Amino acid sequence: MLFSIPKLNKEIGKEVCAYVDQLTKPVGSLGRLEQLAVELAEMTGNKFPDVSPPGVLVFAADHGVAKEGVSAFPPEVTAQMVWNFVQGGAAINVFSRQIGAIFAIVDVGVAAPIEHEAVISKKVRYGTNNFCEMEAMSNAEAEQALIVGYEQAKEIIDKGARTLIVGEMGIGNTTTASAILTAVSGKPIEQLVGRGTGISEEKIVHKVNVIRRALSLHQPDPSKPIELLSKIGGLEIAAMAGAMLAAAKRRVPILLDGFICTVAALVAKLFAPDVADYMIAGHRSQEIGHQIALELLGKEPLIDLSMRLGEGSGAAVAFPLLTFATAMIKEMATFASAHISNSVEGAGKQS
Amino acid sequence: MLFSIPKLNKEIGKEVCAYVDQLTKPVGSLGRLEQLAVELAEMTGNKFPDVSPPGVLVFAADHGVAKEGVSAFPPEVTAQMVWNFVQGGAAINVFSRQIGAIFAIVDVGVAAPIEHEAVISKKVRYGTNNFCEMEAMSNAEAEQALIVGYEQAKEIIDKGARTLIVGEMGIGNTTTASAILTAVSGKPIEQLVGRGTGISEEKIVHKVNVIRRALSLHQPDPSKPIELLSKIGGLEIAAMAGAMLAAAKRRVPILLDGFICTVAALVAKLFAPDVADYMIAGHRSQEIGHQIALELLGKEPLIDLSMRLGEGSGAAVAFPLLTFATAMIKEMATFASAHISNSVEGAGKQS
Repeated sequence: MLFSIPKLNKEIGKEVCAYVDQLTKPVGSLGRLEQLAVELAEMTGNKFPDVSPPGVLVFAADHGVAKEGVSAFPPEVTAQMVWNFVQGGAAINVFSRQIGAIFAIVDVGVAAPIEHEAVISKKVRYGTNNFCEMEAMSNAEAEQALIVGYEQAKEIIDKGARTLIVGEMGIGNTTTASAILTAVSGKPIEQLVGRGTGISEEKIVHKVNVIRRALSLHQPDPSKPIELLSKIGGLEIAAMAGAMLAAAKRRVPILLDGFICTVAALVAKLFAPDVADYMIAGHRSQEIGHQIALELLGKEPLIDLSMRLGEGSGAAVAFPLLTFATAMIKEMATFASAHISNSVEGAGKQS
Repeated sequence: MLFSIPKLNKEIGKEVCAYVDQLTKPVGSLGRLEQLAVELAEMTGNKFPDVSPPGVLVFAADHGVAKEGVSAFPPEVTAQMVWNFVQGGAAINVFSRQIGAIFAIVDVGVAAPIEHEAVISKKVRYGTNNFCEMEAMSNAEAEQALIVGYEQAKEIIDKGARTLIVGEMGIGNTTTASAILTAVSGKPIEQLVGRGTGISEEKIVHKVNVIRRALSLHQPDPSKPIELLSKIGGLEIAAMAGAMLAAAKRRVPILLDGFICTVAALVAKLFAPDVADYMIAGHRSQEIGHQIALELLGKEPLIDLSMRLGEGSGAAVAFPLLTFATAMIKEMATFASAHISNSVEGAGKQS
């Protein structure tokens, strides 16, 4: 099988669960951090895993559908933002430095020539076609974009990344993500289309109509994920899905960003359902479709700070929580080692 | 006036607000981080403030009311945990290291002799009296504990702390905090009493009755905060309030922990209402009274991870968010500096 994902190590999870209850704190009092310690152990197969350094992979690509005027920003901003990533001035650059990440920016399909040694050049094509008029790309191109992501994740993991964060840049990509989510979820389009980078109420209505036209033209079938991507996909979304599949195969935890990233996670799941075992939802985005994407994935995010930027920024901001969880398990004393009297009520167990 | 608190610098806040909108991201898309940048500027009076290193001050003291059997842990655990803080094995030690904090543990009233060079010895008395039977301490002792906190915060700020986190250790202190909160809020006791370190449902009923007896005996008056503390206070809660007053006076942001800490914040507010201007709520605790304490303070917490440990642990876990906010404002490029086309819809402003 192309994407065979190892099973979670539930045995080590049980060991960590029991060990966490011996640490010098009331049982359960570190809440979600305790769960995280167990999940990270199950994923990595290591009772005391490292999550640092994280690897941040940002995939950039353009969307033909941007021609329909679905974004608050003009399409040339994709290429301009790639330049900003190179200069280190975008939010994800700043946040990557804060978390000590290995950072890489990959051109998987920007609609302009990008030549800079700091950009990994893996352009599959100069942006997608406008999927209102024709298929976004060919099956071969969709597969190629998926493989670009897969290979780049392998590479960043080889460089030492212990957690994978995937981000994106692509003007128009909330439209693409909403189209994919509609096809995957079967929910009404209106519930899945939001303001993106900040469009008006009227433009949201227009965006819904654009997606409706595309879906009616292509009738994408989620049981055929490559075809789904070729019909209504985005090159960066395919790459993000591929990257997640590579991380899961290597037992590297995936920390999800917001709406686009979570839709890419759902696409990855179409290829290999078990990939979701290796995902932790970083934050809840303000983009309205995100909640439904999270529910489909069965994940509850760590933080909710009303963010809606993308690029991987929400995942980066959530990342320190993983380091608190692993530091807790590695460094806290136990009741026995610290000679502390335990709870008089069954080790503090709550009934 | 003893506790004169400087006004927030709203002018700098406005400047930061305008500047944040020029950064290379859709307007408002970094949500709460953008608000934090504005709040931190208003507090510090600096457009590009530093929040690192944070200072973590943990105050330890015992509570006579612990004799009533209101905690899941025996009273000797307060002193044992002080030893754990010295060894660096408690959650707050681990998390303080994660955030690069200046850490200090202060004995303001542990009911056992504590002699160790790593413990700042400022014992006001050997624990409080059981406030079900008599006043917890004298007015002079309450004032002394408040001053201990005030002086220690000044000291840690002099050592370089740019954010103040105050934590506590004191078996029985959720009972004390619930008693204070009942007196301050006027709400029914039952809504303010929780499981603390993990007591049973029956013990919660007992805890409510203990607090009811104390309040009926003392009739504390929130308009006389020293008297309130002497009647039903805790030595570490008085010290925490004092520490907050010192930080606000020096324009140092205060990052609040959970239930006990937020009740101490309400006590500080009784002395000087403006002290709350310098507070940021770190996390939402599972202890049920915390929500009401936060509402009284008018603060919405940054994170909610179902934690309920205390020690300052929730604030420490929230701290990195302050560093993301300050890094954003210091390091992100503007649309102009990065030569990026701005939004076609009024700079991305949402209507």
